[in-house]
Amino acid sequence: MGGSFAKALKKYNLAKKVYGYDHNISHQKEAISLGFVDEIVELDKLKNESDLVVLAIPVDGIIKFLPSLEGIDKNTTITDFGSTKKFIVDNIPNSLKSQYVPAHPMTGTEKSGPSASIDGLYEDKIVVLCDIDRVEAIHKVRIDLIFNTIKMNIVYMDSSEHDIHAGYISHLPHAISFALANTVMSHENPENIVALAAGGFRDTSRIAKSSPHMWTDIFRQNRDNLLDGIRLYKEQLSMIEKTLEDGNYEEMKKLMEKANTLHNIL
Amino acid sequence: MGGSFAKALKKYNLAKKVYGYDHNISHQKEAISLGFVDEIVELDKLKNESDLVVLAIPVDGIIKFLPSLEGIDKNTTITDFGSTKKFIVDNIPNSLKSQYVPAHPMTGTEKSGPSASIDGLYEDKIVVLCDIDRVEAIHKVRIDLIFNTIKMNIVYMDSSEHDIHAGYISHLPHAISFALANTVMSHENPENIVALAAGGFRDTSRIAKSSPHMWTDIFRQNRDNLLDGIRLYKEQLSMIEKTLEDGNYEEMKKLMEKANTLHNIL
Repeated sequence: MGGSFAKALKKYNLAKKVYGYDHNISHQKEAISLGFVDEIVELDKLKNESDLVVLAIPVDGIIKFLPSLEGIDKNTTITDFGSTKKFIVDNIPNSLKSQYVPAHPMTGTEKSGPSASIDGLYEDKIVVLCDIDRVEAIHKVRIDLIFNTIKMNIVYMDSSEHDIHAGYISHLPHAISFALANTVMSHENPENIVALAAGGFRDTSRIAKSSPHMWTDIFRQNRDNLLDGIRLYKEQLSMIEKTLEDGNYEEMKKLMEKANTLHNIL
Repeated sequence: MGGSFAKALKKYNLAKKVYGYDHNISHQKEAISLGFVDEIVELDKLKNESDLVVLAIPVDGIIKFLPSLEGIDKNTTITDFGSTKKFIVDNIPNSLKSQYVPAHPMTGTEKSGPSASIDGLYEDKIVVLCDIDRVEAIHKVRIDLIFNTIKMNIVYMDSSEHDIHAGYISHLPHAISFALANTVMSHENPENIVALAAGGFRDTSRIAKSSPHMWTDIFRQNRDNLLDGIRLYKEQLSMIEKTLEDGNYEEMKKLMEKANTLHNIL
């Protein structure tokens, strides 16, 4: 996410310089050699010489890193790209609240690290900004301008609301996909998986390749909403299962027709 | 499937003429106007003047149509593109068995009908041929030549084995996707779905837009294997759910890491 964002900033001339800050030495080197980061810096330089700081790291990492940003220049806008928002918002130090814009860009791939960065990842995608009422005008203006310039569409949402909706629309599909991959791999041998994997399985299992580190953090931070989602999902799957058990194919068809109405939305 | 296959036959000069046979009048007209069918014919002409007959219709329709092919020219090769194979194989009339090659091309989209036909749908994809031991050499040769020429890779499988594996690798993902779409649509409003649907939800829910008619038939014909798959899947999902309930994030990460190994296969 961070690498692709750096590429977007450079493509649209939004940054004279992009600084990289990462505890992972090989990621530092990769980011420099891939050319989207100009310089790897220390924390002090990051805090004193940045207009915008983007936390594009796993959500637990964001929580841990937040205190070290205290004392940052008041004109620096801070944002994070985490997939959960409420727990992060609750952990923003008071001294940073007026300059911190929690964001969730609705884009990405199942891959991570600098080498996973791609051009155009953010274009024509939605970014959700949360709880911005307490953010100062200059930071709102900067964030709006940057996201709009890289062709994103901004949606505003309360952080608690965000986490409920993301729990169902983003985190639940990941849980479902992890479980599907584990089911198929526990029952099928690789040869048959390769032979019979058409677009349906490839698409439903793609996000099962996502980072366990990143997604364990997300599931932990959005535990209650995701549990609600999994329970409701199991009921829906059981309804399909029951039509199979009962041989009630009229009812099965109705459930599929209901699912088809998603087509009216997406 | 049928339209895209007609396009492939024409692209690779495999057919002088493509005949269309469809009880749906608007599909007949569409196929002609889209140009991949040269002529709509009656059953007698289809049976007397075809080198290859492809049944690209829902699997229950295949079963119903099979008896009307009796009396077809012995040099005509017959195949079907159904997603189930055992029930079809069991219903091939004895008089047709030596000329009938049951096939399952592992490709397609969630759309159906002539207007859903696309170029290159079959290229570099796998086609599974079932129970071909009883098929006469001339029909094996013709089918092999045609599928190879349109750049498909052939895999041979017993029809019962096919249905077990397809139950897990193709039919289960469809059940999962239908249930996901119904979960999200029963809990979320369209506005939030559009705002928060990134690639993960789009990919896992895409096949929930598939034809209820076609998929009710498939689920019915592969009922027992699919029920096994759904039960195993619910166990896997419950394992993830339990790690959430117990706050056992080490175990959750292990389950995700296991799912990640799919990457070694696909």
